[in-house]
Amino acid sequence: MLIILCHTGAYVGKLLVVPMDGSHWVGMKAISQEMGRRGHRVTVVMPEITILIGPGEHYETLIYPLPFDKAFVDFIMSKNEDVLGKATQPFLERIQEKFSQIKRITELLHTTAESLLFNASLISHLAQQRFDAVLTDPMVPTGSLIARKLGIPTVNLLRGIPCFLDMQSTGCPSPPSYVPRFFTGLTDKMDFKQRVINTLPLLCRLIYWRFDQIAKEFLEEDVGVAEVLSDSAIWLHRIDFTMEFPRPFMPNMVPVGGINCNVRNPLPEDLEPWVSGKQGFVVFTLGTSMKKMPDEITQVFLEAFRQIPQKVIWRYSEVAPDNTPENVKMMSWVPQNDLLAHPGARAFITHAGSHGLFEGLCHAVPMVMVPIGGDQPDNAARMASRGVGVVLDISSITAEDLLQGLNEVINDTRYKENMKRLSALHRDRPIDPLDLSVYWTEFVMRHKGAKHLKAAVHDLNWFQYFCLDVIALLATIVLVFIVLTAKCLKFCCRKLSRKRKKRKQD
Amino acid sequence: MLIILCHTGAYVGKLLVVPMDGSHWVGMKAISQEMGRRGHRVTVVMPEITILIGPGEHYETLIYPLPFDKAFVDFIMSKNEDVLGKATQPFLERIQEKFSQIKRITELLHTTAESLLFNASLISHLAQQRFDAVLTDPMVPTGSLIARKLGIPTVNLLRGIPCFLDMQSTGCPSPPSYVPRFFTGLTDKMDFKQRVINTLPLLCRLIYWRFDQIAKEFLEEDVGVAEVLSDSAIWLHRIDFTMEFPRPFMPNMVPVGGINCNVRNPLPEDLEPWVSGKQGFVVFTLGTSMKKMPDEITQVFLEAFRQIPQKVIWRYSEVAPDNTPENVKMMSWVPQNDLLAHPGARAFITHAGSHGLFEGLCHAVPMVMVPIGGDQPDNAARMASRGVGVVLDISSITAEDLLQGLNEVINDTRYKENMKRLSALHRDRPIDPLDLSVYWTEFVMRHKGAKHLKAAVHDLNWFQYFCLDVIALLATIVLVFIVLTAKCLKFCCRKLSRKRKKRKQD
Repeated sequence: MLIILCHTGAYVGKLLVVPMDGSHWVGMKAISQEMGRRGHRVTVVMPEITILIGPGEHYETLIYPLPFDKAFVDFIMSKNEDVLGKATQPFLERIQEKFSQIKRITELLHTTAESLLFNASLISHLAQQRFDAVLTDPMVPTGSLIARKLGIPTVNLLRGIPCFLDMQSTGCPSPPSYVPRFFTGLTDKMDFKQRVINTLPLLCRLIYWRFDQIAKEFLEEDVGVAEVLSDSAIWLHRIDFTMEFPRPFMPNMVPVGGINCNVRNPLPEDLEPWVSGKQGFVVFTLGTSMKKMPDEITQVFLEAFRQIPQKVIWRYSEVAPDNTPENVKMMSWVPQNDLLAHPGARAFITHAGSHGLFEGLCHAVPMVMVPIGGDQPDNAARMASRGVGVVLDISSITAEDLLQGLNEVINDTRYKENMKRLSALHRDRPIDPLDLSVYWTEFVMRHKGAKHLKAAVHDLNWFQYFCLDVIALLATIVLVFIVLTAKCLKFCCRKLSRKRKKRKQD
Repeated sequence: MLIILCHTGAYVGKLLVVPMDGSHWVGMKAISQEMGRRGHRVTVVMPEITILIGPGEHYETLIYPLPFDKAFVDFIMSKNEDVLGKATQPFLERIQEKFSQIKRITELLHTTAESLLFNASLISHLAQQRFDAVLTDPMVPTGSLIARKLGIPTVNLLRGIPCFLDMQSTGCPSPPSYVPRFFTGLTDKMDFKQRVINTLPLLCRLIYWRFDQIAKEFLEEDVGVAEVLSDSAIWLHRIDFTMEFPRPFMPNMVPVGGINCNVRNPLPEDLEPWVSGKQGFVVFTLGTSMKKMPDEITQVFLEAFRQIPQKVIWRYSEVAPDNTPENVKMMSWVPQNDLLAHPGARAFITHAGSHGLFEGLCHAVPMVMVPIGGDQPDNAARMASRGVGVVLDISSITAEDLLQGLNEVINDTRYKENMKRLSALHRDRPIDPLDLSVYWTEFVMRHKGAKHLKAAVHDLNWFQYFCLDVIALLATIVLVFIVLTAKCLKFCCRKLSRKRKKRKQD
């Protein structure tokens, strides 16, 4: 094999990285870079058109062609804005718009996956490389499918998979009574109605049916995505129990939330004087998939910012509107983590993407959260339940709402105090999450998997898992016992009454 | 409060240690020593008569009196031997003997606990010390009761608690379909019969009823042991998934099995030449609670040892029998970990106590396991299922059995190979288990607990936990739907048939 054991115990191996684009790339990039820096040969497979994925200093890239162009991707991304700016639209139309956008994005994901999987020469090239492990985001199971095809162990880096497919594939119990499902926005304290919502059956097959088909075709075997994912050696979950509600975990699941906290640089020279004002400043960014907000919402934010004493640094890709007040600086890119780490940061207006939240948590900055989609409403619910921020509905937001929200998190000291306490807990970990991620990736490469961490649950069908056969047997025994006892009693009673009758007759 | 924060981020606090005696003290002592070495003030509370607990360099001791003497404890310990040497006794008598011994030991534990808890001056002295945390073994909940009384957070160090009381108190799911219960000797792969055994209801209340009473009396509140234990901040489980079967874990449960692996010293001068023979040597020790074996069993071991080319180092408290062969060295104490770490160690004959197994695992020495009681049959089943040792029944052992067992693990290379693989996995951990234990103990002291790691399961009753109310509602809805549909169909059919009849009549 290709692992070279050195006398120091360190070793050099070959890692294949099959990332997901967008913010999912952020943590994946950190691990890829660090693995490369430690001497491993890291190969990142990426499509020719990407949002965030790109070359790096410590890894090589392999690019595969797509059957569409950049304009098509830009068109789909621009549709994210449409979903937002329709507060006045009828409810049903808004839902329809949302579903259309989800459909567009999933089709993009399917086509991208197929472009990689059915690129025979690329797959054969990958097979020749004899990688020691695949690092991938299993939300799109392309990497997992390649790993199964090539017989390589997988390390997953993920925030979570819709409909708890990750929990299903690891065999991890997720009692619906206190473990809220994705996309419900619920917390771990649910009333009866909420528990009903949280218990309704999940339709993984429906969400992943297209990938199930792709899996069958690519692997040439009758297998679904859930089964392919259950091959995975290690699951690096981008969660931390300061943010996530405590829940059961399996031995091959490792929480590594907050990977980027320590990746810090000094602020650019032009920003330092801007943020050093006495009143401090507010950082405002939305996700990578939201390039531009509808104008009417932009104006709401500007109106609110005009009325606060803090300065505002806003990540804004377009030309700044004419009426931008003096205390607002718009930039197409901001050093978010470095800004949040600055002592002047008073509040963080965020779409509640997990990376941003971890950065805010790391540097103890209270938050005004305006979730847009995906896991964001769930993330926001988690942070709000800790008393470290407020949640506002961005599609119907008013300047008053925003002002009130900012006023609360900046001036009500409880938010900052809660945040400082939570941040201290978050940062107090026995090992840095990036080091831990690299450690487990190397572990899988060293030992060609981590089978000893996989529970025997995978050998059971659902009937055996819930011991329904055992319960049926025990229930039958109890039932037989009750019936027999009743019959015996009846028999005795009859005998007794007959005897009495006889005596009376005598 | 008493935590003094230093500028380096290190801090000094006060730790109260309420240990359990016997082998349970081994890991507890390692943590106490290390905590003291790091500058914390560590106070170990111990009874005046102990088996293993004693003073140490880095902690102070507080001794409390007992209402019995050493002869009484020695008498009970000597009874362990009786349980062994009765292979020819009828089954029922042996069971009775075992139960009598369990009763003796539990009564000793209860009396010892009461001697500490109802020692008013000692408890009031402890209250005055304002400790930051209690480190204890929750199998005997004395320390947990003191912690609740004094309002101090608890760190538990444990192998496990009978009847899964630990899992109940942490709210950790333990599906009986693949998580074998203590004292069953089952593995994670069970057939139907075994799953039935593993699913039978647990009687925690019965085992802990006396402690439930002590808890009520001591705390002056209506509370049981399970509830007191659910206060615990962190559970340091002396397990590792190379030995333990993979199973769900909760965020406040930390596996720290193999704490003593790296605590190593050079061999004493007189032992080094003895063990350096070409054929290697066998290490043979039984637990701390087994001072002496019945003579007939001793002779069986001697007879087997006479026929092997290896030397044998045997921990044996009495005078060596006259017919001890030349290749056997009997010692009242042996440096077990250092011997197992020696390259000449060929096999380890052990009672399968968890500490011994971890030392054998750490140094990759295949094992012949002769479990006696407690968790030992379970531990042995785990190691045997990994193909790293064989299990023999010590009460009916013959020289042939032992010879065959030794021959297998020494000469069948598969045992050594499996052990080397398992040992490599066991030793490959991101952080040393002793450091990890100290880290979490300090964490609890720093943050006055670890509430953020405790799942919301504790706020639910069992009905809500299993969502039985939700299932009842959903079942009712489905039922109503079925009944209504059936009624509708029936109604329509009747209408139709009436119409047809009418038509026919017309």
